[in-house]
Amino acid sequence: MPNIPVVKHILSANDQIAEDNRALFQREGIFALNLMASPGAGKTSLILATAARLPDAVRPGVIEGDLASRIDADAIAARGIPVVQINTGGGCHLDAPMIRSALDDLPLDEIDLLLIENVGNLVCPANFQLGAHLNVVVASVSEGHDKPYKYPGMFAAAHIVLLNKADLIDVFEFDVDYFQRGVQMVNAAAPLFVLSCKKGVGVDAWVTWLLGRMNKLK
Amino acid sequence: MPNIPVVKHILSANDQIAEDNRALFQREGIFALNLMASPGAGKTSLILATAARLPDAVRPGVIEGDLASRIDADAIAARGIPVVQINTGGGCHLDAPMIRSALDDLPLDEIDLLLIENVGNLVCPANFQLGAHLNVVVASVSEGHDKPYKYPGMFAAAHIVLLNKADLIDVFEFDVDYFQRGVQMVNAAAPLFVLSCKKGVGVDAWVTWLLGRMNKLK
Repeated sequence: MPNIPVVKHILSANDQIAEDNRALFQREGIFALNLMASPGAGKTSLILATAARLPDAVRPGVIEGDLASRIDADAIAARGIPVVQINTGGGCHLDAPMIRSALDDLPLDEIDLLLIENVGNLVCPANFQLGAHLNVVVASVSEGHDKPYKYPGMFAAAHIVLLNKADLIDVFEFDVDYFQRGVQMVNAAAPLFVLSCKKGVGVDAWVTWLLGRMNKLK
Repeated sequence: MPNIPVVKHILSANDQIAEDNRALFQREGIFALNLMASPGAGKTSLILATAARLPDAVRPGVIEGDLASRIDADAIAARGIPVVQINTGGGCHLDAPMIRSALDDLPLDEIDLLLIENVGNLVCPANFQLGAHLNVVVASVSEGHDKPYKYPGMFAAAHIVLLNKADLIDVFEFDVDYFQRGVQMVNAAAPLFVLSCKKGVGVDAWVTWLLGRMNKLK
């Protein structure tokens, strides 16, 4: 039998930098989330609601991704949370090098939980690793209950799915069971939390789950 | 002075096929709309509400674009409207060749108005010509009033902006003036119509405008 050399899997340039980001997070003791969602699903509202419920020992930091504007970063900064705004120009998603650059402008030794808000887009962000520990997909009731069936790639990439704007389930005649079956069809492992960031309902359960995942890593 | 040759602008492959699509529409007497929006903004609802208000002489046809599923096409077909579903796989937008293929499966001589529902995405579809006569951007109140500031490319590409789910302006504390200023900032020419497809409010005004544009072309 010839001695066939085993060639190491060569990562793409993005994935290599994502691994570097992850190693940096580990060194700095930072747990990082990649928040992905449609435009207007409530990513920024989730960040604010989550940060408000963290114990003192878990200090938040934020990277905001948008094509343009600094609207979200201003909202975060107004709460006294360290934040960097990435403007992608026309780009439809964040990538690992953008995160790497943004980290230079954050006080990493003052951050325990980094919340990365990706560009509002239910397609492209799922294809680019950033180095985060968890992919969090934020769906919202106002988008309709058929989204997991129409955008399976995004829901397949999720480690957890949060269904926001739950206070409007009746207004939108939203079928939670149908939505949940759609998520499970492409991703049997991802838990689903139903919440309303605006009303503060269900956010505690999500934060408790998140803190549990952070503790496991320690 | 040397005789400098003027080289004709070479279209990209997509744009060339988009021009072919447009020429086909002209030959067949078809007016075509490219409907672009975030996931769940109400593109399918707009198609159904629009089709229900067309005079008998304006017969609709539909091309549905989604990453996966035929949920929207089924809803259209249930109303007796000719429809083709394009599944892009993972693709984040429709392109001109996809439209060209779909046209083979539509009864073009029975269609006067072709409504093309693009993939739900407020970024990528704006960059690909399909051959349509008008780009219609459907925003929705539930996405929030900051979208033109965050996704300027999409709003710049619009010939008209429709703001759907207007029945929920109070629920979402949506600032229509702020939204409109954002649209005008990137696109001073595009008219804005505020409507609710679900409640049937404001749809007549949009259909009247549309029929006027179709008549101009004749």
